[in-house]
Amino acid sequence: MDFASYIRDIEDFPKPGVVFKDISPLLKHPEALQKAAEALLGFTGNARVDKVVGVDSRGFIFAPLLAEKLGAGFVPVRKTGKLPYKTIAASYELEYGSGSLEIHSDAIEKGEKVLVHDDVLATGGTAEAVCKLVEQLGGEVIQCNFLIELTFLNGAEKIKQYQKKVLLQY
Amino acid sequence: MDFASYIRDIEDFPKPGVVFKDISPLLKHPEALQKAAEALLGFTGNARVDKVVGVDSRGFIFAPLLAEKLGAGFVPVRKTGKLPYKTIAASYELEYGSGSLEIHSDAIEKGEKVLVHDDVLATGGTAEAVCKLVEQLGGEVIQCNFLIELTFLNGAEKIKQYQKKVLLQY
Repeated sequence: MDFASYIRDIEDFPKPGVVFKDISPLLKHPEALQKAAEALLGFTGNARVDKVVGVDSRGFIFAPLLAEKLGAGFVPVRKTGKLPYKTIAASYELEYGSGSLEIHSDAIEKGEKVLVHDDVLATGGTAEAVCKLVEQLGGEVIQCNFLIELTFLNGAEKIKQYQKKVLLQY
Repeated sequence: MDFASYIRDIEDFPKPGVVFKDISPLLKHPEALQKAAEALLGFTGNARVDKVVGVDSRGFIFAPLLAEKLGAGFVPVRKTGKLPYKTIAASYELEYGSGSLEIHSDAIEKGEKVLVHDDVLATGGTAEAVCKLVEQLGGEVIQCNFLIELTFLNGAEKIKQYQKKVLLQY
């Protein structure tokens, strides 16, 4: 399937000069949604996955779906103050500023195999922070996968110690 | 499955006096995640569903998963300013204040059958606003389903013209 034909360029969003890759056309198309899920699933093959971590909020779209199909649990990573239970936090730099992310401190057990998923790999700051949170809890990041990589932002460099898989590169 | 045993009460979150129903233990448990998805799917049975609308951000956890399994598309509803393309908006009152929600104006076609999903039915303000947005685009809401209903907040009253299904009532 030509996934790129379901991605829409939005100029000057969220800031002037930025071209935003809008995945909404892919999500609303039943076959494109199914094929994208299938392609993401193919990235882990038969590897054991105990938890799939998804990043708030567009990472929530595919991460639970992958978890359900892989027989894994789903773990959300969210911006500070959003998770209700005990958390650990990590700061990060991202394409349009900086922020802080949290994960529940009981979300991952020591030795668990963890797949990290987000919709877009941009500067890699978010993905790097998420991997560190997983490792702080004793989990092993077996792969980071994404729908889209914006290669010109060099995010791959920040997570080069992990296996990286992407559906579409720009 | 005893889903209630996977829901955690968090006192005084997000505000003093509120008991928050934390679904994280259910999400991180592989079997509970699968069984919850199965139960939600059972709510629509063999009904035709063209689009599943999920509400930012915890509604994103199950809505795309349901869409993928139902052969439908997924449509996000988000807080104002988050969706990149042309939108229509609706204001709403909710348990802890008020806000405004948006949907992409090309997300739903006239006559499409739409399932609305969110994690929690509280005052019903959000669900009501989402249904109005769907109808404004010409869609027909065939069901609103939720993981949890906080019955003491009477949200069911606000969406009584729609079919409502929930996994757990408190």
